[in-house]
Amino acid sequence: MRKNILMKRDYTSKEIKKLFISEIQRHNSTLLINKNNLIFNANYLFKICKNTVIAPVIKSDAYGLGAIEITKIYINLGLKNFFVGNTSEAIKIRKKFKNINIFILNCGMIFDFNLLKKYKLTPVINNINQLTNWPLSSKNKIPCMIHIDTGMNRLGLNSKDFMSSENKTKLKKMNIKYLISHLACADDEKNSFNTIQLLKLKKMQIYLKHIKGINIKTSISNSSGIWLGKKYFLDLVRPGAAFLGINPSINNPNPLKNVICLYTYILQTRIAYKNTTVGYGASYKLHKKSKLATISIGYSNGFSRLLSNVGSVFINDKEAKIVGKISMDLSVVDITDFKESNIKVGDPVEIFGENRSIDDFATLNNTIAYEIICQVGKYSKKIIY
Amino acid sequence: MRKNILMKRDYTSKEIKKLFISEIQRHNSTLLINKNNLIFNANYLFKICKNTVIAPVIKSDAYGLGAIEITKIYINLGLKNFFVGNTSEAIKIRKKFKNINIFILNCGMIFDFNLLKKYKLTPVINNINQLTNWPLSSKNKIPCMIHIDTGMNRLGLNSKDFMSSENKTKLKKMNIKYLISHLACADDEKNSFNTIQLLKLKKMQIYLKHIKGINIKTSISNSSGIWLGKKYFLDLVRPGAAFLGINPSINNPNPLKNVICLYTYILQTRIAYKNTTVGYGASYKLHKKSKLATISIGYSNGFSRLLSNVGSVFINDKEAKIVGKISMDLSVVDITDFKESNIKVGDPVEIFGENRSIDDFATLNNTIAYEIICQVGKYSKKIIY
Repeated sequence: MRKNILMKRDYTSKEIKKLFISEIQRHNSTLLINKNNLIFNANYLFKICKNTVIAPVIKSDAYGLGAIEITKIYINLGLKNFFVGNTSEAIKIRKKFKNINIFILNCGMIFDFNLLKKYKLTPVINNINQLTNWPLSSKNKIPCMIHIDTGMNRLGLNSKDFMSSENKTKLKKMNIKYLISHLACADDEKNSFNTIQLLKLKKMQIYLKHIKGINIKTSISNSSGIWLGKKYFLDLVRPGAAFLGINPSINNPNPLKNVICLYTYILQTRIAYKNTTVGYGASYKLHKKSKLATISIGYSNGFSRLLSNVGSVFINDKEAKIVGKISMDLSVVDITDFKESNIKVGDPVEIFGENRSIDDFATLNNTIAYEIICQVGKYSKKIIY
Repeated sequence: MRKNILMKRDYTSKEIKKLFISEIQRHNSTLLINKNNLIFNANYLFKICKNTVIAPVIKSDAYGLGAIEITKIYINLGLKNFFVGNTSEAIKIRKKFKNINIFILNCGMIFDFNLLKKYKLTPVINNINQLTNWPLSSKNKIPCMIHIDTGMNRLGLNSKDFMSSENKTKLKKMNIKYLISHLACADDEKNSFNTIQLLKLKKMQIYLKHIKGINIKTSISNSSGIWLGKKYFLDLVRPGAAFLGINPSINNPNPLKNVICLYTYILQTRIAYKNTTVGYGASYKLHKKSKLATISIGYSNGFSRLLSNVGSVFINDKEAKIVGKISMDLSVVDITDFKESNIKVGDPVEIFGENRSIDDFATLNNTIAYEIICQVGKYSKKIIY
């Protein structure tokens, strides 16, 4: 059962600094993960998807945030079904959590049935070879999901292969838990491709009913799919990003709360003279005497070089422009316009979070929030608070 | 003493596949590190820098390749002096290697002298506060380096602070091992800024000689600096990227051998029909019936979304274009033009290495090879062979 969680109020920016500054000053980059806001987002999903199984996606180490810690939070919320990216992720999760169902989105080329049985893992069948070689001999038939490609052309069986006459007997006997597919344009509710994909999956469900005599459950929605409305919920939804507060829609304001903030700190400040340059390639020239702050983050921490000379950060809620190229573990920002009293060595520097959403930060990086989390998550000290 | 290493011949592409295919098929992305070529590059550097200390930079986990393993190779080559990025990196290295000198490029805001003494670490003084607070009381004076900023405006003392009268007594008494600086435009030997920086550092060396009565050793060159010629070697050079075969110059062909290749493998293939689309956002439309291969790498493995619909990979030495958006742990390439006999599920897929240099791959990603190594190194299975 999903539990009701009493929401605590959020920490203010000042409180965060007070509580976490010593940690922030000890690492190049620190990712603060707001558990309360994650729970808010979970409750939001629970409210929308009342009669549907919610199975969080925790692949790629929960998008870089740490699969064990994030799964623990989900389990405490009463969730029991989880999707991982591959078998080694699945085993890592199983070793920590015994009483959950683990579904593997992609087992690689061939299934290791010994591992699947040993760790009680449910694989997704993604192609015709895997279906053809699926064993039927065992007494307790191995449970599986079958992925039908309805428009991604990436993983999944196409309808022709799925419905080929050779597979009929096999499909009849298999223990298929869900027939799943994946939406290509779920973040755009105006896109008619969503309906087309949904109908294709339903057609396969009907085909399977003819063979097996029963309705096999279906699933098609990731986070964004949930915002397409009830008819996309089907029997199970697979949100990942929504828990983390990433905007599920490209057309609408974000109804979710932000969960992750990335911080670094000011390592040193300097007066820099007119006509001197900053960083590699001398790519930024100072047109007046300026005050600069060197901050303790660079591209080896996932802070992309694309932001060189064009990006900015926030120090005590005020924007500071990046000047010069971003280095491997250092960057420089212009703090000429800051009051002396309002900035000092050791101050936390917000890369994204309170003053700039992760979605806006991703846009500046020419990408989507998913990639940002994966990039910075793996590189940063992570604190769940 | 630096050892003479007998070069073994390189493995061919086919041999690599034969030897490593099972490892490649077990991981999303696999980084093959060619030790022979790294040794070739080291020997190349030894030949150029005959009478200069060569101190490899192993910061950011040896640019993501694994600091312990890479340092082991350097030590076996007879190298004894190493630069790390911060104190925690230094301690990690010290715990494994007792008889080397470890210099810390950036100790953060303040020095932890207990740690520095306990682990016999030599810090770099980067700003006036660190110099002012440097202790002189102890009998065995702590060794240090002083970083003079000669044009990066990033770390290091400016000449005015360094030469201020208050510091004279302190500088006189300190145990300064090296006076160092960092070049901004070393990869461009035509840039006059290099000479300006060199002269500024030498001026500070002369100033220090006036105070201390002896010549303090100096260092200014990273990998690229070495290619600027003998006068930039000074007493110590700090190469990192050159060992790894990254081109030290933007104007000249690369004299070094490639060290790292990134591979993934073909997860499944499919026939995709005319007018269907590939991947998220349905951003790629197939104008004819095509054959596609889904490969087991995505942006969570450091394979940037920027390459969506524009990048390419190599399968059995033939180029295959990326179609559609790169996903978190999957990408799709077009293999319509491949002979049936020349491609199959499980085949290794080269992201960069033999058919495309890491420098060219970096250019496609709108960045430099340093960032690519850091991105993919941390995400990939690494094999030194």
